[in-house]
Amino acid sequence: MGIVVQKYGGSSVADATGIKRVAQRIVNTRKAGHDVVVVVSAMGDTTDDLRDLAEQVTPLPPPRELDMLLTAGERISMALVAMAISQLGYKARSFTGSQAGVITDSAHGKAKIIDITPGRIEAALADGAIAIVAGFQGVSQDTKDVTTLGRGASDTTAVALAASLGADVCEIYSDVDGVFTADPRIVPAARKLAQVSTEEMLEMAASGAKILHLRCVEYARRYNMPIHVRSSFSEKEGTWVIPDRRAGEVEMEQAIIAGVAHDRSEAKITVVGVPDKVGEAARIFEALSATEVNLDMVVQNVSAAATGLTDISFTLPRSDGQTAMGALARIQDEVGYDKLLYDDQIGKVSLIGAGMRSHPGITAKFFASLAAAGVNIEMISTSEIRISVIVDEAQVDDAVRATHTAFDLDSTEVEAVVYGGTGR
Amino acid sequence: MGIVVQKYGGSSVADATGIKRVAQRIVNTRKAGHDVVVVVSAMGDTTDDLRDLAEQVTPLPPPRELDMLLTAGERISMALVAMAISQLGYKARSFTGSQAGVITDSAHGKAKIIDITPGRIEAALADGAIAIVAGFQGVSQDTKDVTTLGRGASDTTAVALAASLGADVCEIYSDVDGVFTADPRIVPAARKLAQVSTEEMLEMAASGAKILHLRCVEYARRYNMPIHVRSSFSEKEGTWVIPDRRAGEVEMEQAIIAGVAHDRSEAKITVVGVPDKVGEAARIFEALSATEVNLDMVVQNVSAAATGLTDISFTLPRSDGQTAMGALARIQDEVGYDKLLYDDQIGKVSLIGAGMRSHPGITAKFFASLAAAGVNIEMISTSEIRISVIVDEAQVDDAVRATHTAFDLDSTEVEAVVYGGTGR
Repeated sequence: MGIVVQKYGGSSVADATGIKRVAQRIVNTRKAGHDVVVVVSAMGDTTDDLRDLAEQVTPLPPPRELDMLLTAGERISMALVAMAISQLGYKARSFTGSQAGVITDSAHGKAKIIDITPGRIEAALADGAIAIVAGFQGVSQDTKDVTTLGRGASDTTAVALAASLGADVCEIYSDVDGVFTADPRIVPAARKLAQVSTEEMLEMAASGAKILHLRCVEYARRYNMPIHVRSSFSEKEGTWVIPDRRAGEVEMEQAIIAGVAHDRSEAKITVVGVPDKVGEAARIFEALSATEVNLDMVVQNVSAAATGLTDISFTLPRSDGQTAMGALARIQDEVGYDKLLYDDQIGKVSLIGAGMRSHPGITAKFFASLAAAGVNIEMISTSEIRISVIVDEAQVDDAVRATHTAFDLDSTEVEAVVYGGTGR
Repeated sequence: MGIVVQKYGGSSVADATGIKRVAQRIVNTRKAGHDVVVVVSAMGDTTDDLRDLAEQVTPLPPPRELDMLLTAGERISMALVAMAISQLGYKARSFTGSQAGVITDSAHGKAKIIDITPGRIEAALADGAIAIVAGFQGVSQDTKDVTTLGRGASDTTAVALAASLGADVCEIYSDVDGVFTADPRIVPAARKLAQVSTEEMLEMAASGAKILHLRCVEYARRYNMPIHVRSSFSEKEGTWVIPDRRAGEVEMEQAIIAGVAHDRSEAKITVVGVPDKVGEAARIFEALSATEVNLDMVVQNVSAAATGLTDISFTLPRSDGQTAMGALARIQDEVGYDKLLYDDQIGKVSLIGAGMRSHPGITAKFFASLAAAGVNIEMISTSEIRISVIVDEAQVDDAVRATHTAFDLDSTEVEAVVYGGTGR
């Protein structure tokens, strides 16, 4: 029996009752003969409450101190989980990110894991104890300061730790039963997927599915670590996110389409009347790159021959909108474009499926289903296993439902789905 | 200009407003040219709230995990204080007990400081920053686990840190203006002392005055560190607790009596009918010692010649009452005493003053004042500079007031006293 890493989100440990329930589940896994390492998030809304407290003190908290503050959240939940386990008669020891050997760079608030040196975790396991580790946090290699890995990064801690410990599986618990073919709040007939490939999960996470954090899935792919996404509120099997090669090995009948994802967090900026000369687009994207905004889709219209001018549109997180508009305004004279348009009333709908590779005609069917639903397509981007379109925000739900039905994803029986926030 | 260590209690940093006020005071000290190291307690009732949370999970939390949990409190307050300072344009860096080099033994919940290695604090000061240190916590030398020093021990952190840094003074801030000749809630005419010797402060702390923690004063005496006890809510000078030799050096006219302290936290146990033979008392106190209860006053009555039996009474913290009664019950057959009496309706009133040494008649005057007030004395204990009596709990206030008046301690003008909890 090998090592199992379990990660519990904030909604699973929101109060004493939740913590006791989680402790029982952990102990059950231990009883089944596994060594258990648990990664916990902060209780319920603790992290947001701490952020509010910081805001009451200063609008611009120094990042080092904000990290020091926020890491108190997991400290509280991990100690309580360890207590609850010991109340059940099992040994448990809690560890901060630093104690667990989560070594990061010094980018406070969005630190990247450089290495994991889990000596104390391994010692705890060797001693017969269950190790409880604070998610979301680490210690910087250079300054030995406490860092955080960014919102939702407890999943990443769990997968990285699982990889470094050579665990059999990383179980990610939240208040959702697994990965669905679409958001069940929009498509009540959405089905829970029994399994999905890491590759598909990566595209779903990048396309706005909030069930797993993008970086966590990237880790799982890099280290070939299977993830089991499931609910801490039920005993049901969840969704297995299986490394691509392994999925191939078992020669499964791969579904063509894994699901439909949507994202309402982006805005679209259009730079109108850009001189269609070599280097103009480069200048625009260099200016944006300097601000560190993350661009998603980029489209350049065919130049109108008569004017020698073109339009460049791109999407980006709404939270980066101000920054990007400012950066572009500063280079207007240099580039000589006409004007900027900003639109945050957009949504992205994506169809994801590894089976697309071998099945032509998916794009046509996708677009036809949108047309039939009266949804206008503003931008298109594709990867080998994904097609995404930008539509009017008000039409996102219609687009998701129409696509879900068109690709025969609707379940015949509607499951009783627990669906709230993502719990992380 | 040397180093000033300031310690702020929980009531001083109870909310964002308090934290900003404290930050301004810290910055003012920095502006005056001092290097400043700040020790903070957890905000308001945070520590108690965390204890409640632990109790909801288990009645018997493992001490290691309870320490992990409770240390989240100072982590929050220290980060917020550092943020508030940076908002005022000054550099500040927060450090956990472990980061500050507070090395302790492994006695979770009541760890003792073994050493302080404040390298990171000194580096922060050298870098022009204000260092903010979590009070109440450290890291164990052997296991590298997080420890707490026990309730109210942030004062101890501050004085120990001040000593190890060679600070000029350790300022202890709370919501009280200083050390008073008696509790102003009982004696409205109590006066704030401008100064008091460490020796006297030690006796006052041991006699129930809650303004400074006993261990903190012991540290101050051992390391010759002056303490300035004052309120964070006013700019008034507080009380200077001056090392004994220094107090002597300045050849002050020493007041005979420093103050009247009282303590309602003790209970009295009487072992009735103990055979008056060599070794019986030893057997009783060995049994008590094995339970680690802290005895305070001990009295053995003169043996009644006719019976050859004697009574032994002692006082101890009420919280240890059950444990002690249990231990004594278990040795009844062995010792052959008659019965046990338990009384928690008692109080201790103490008169403290270094001037007692050279002024005879203090005891007589003390007892006369109690008699005049109709207060019956149950037990007596004395040190060179203290006289304590046990009285009926209901008569404690009367006893304190009568004594305060008898020794001319009453102020002619009543100060506006801010007096609440001790804030730690």
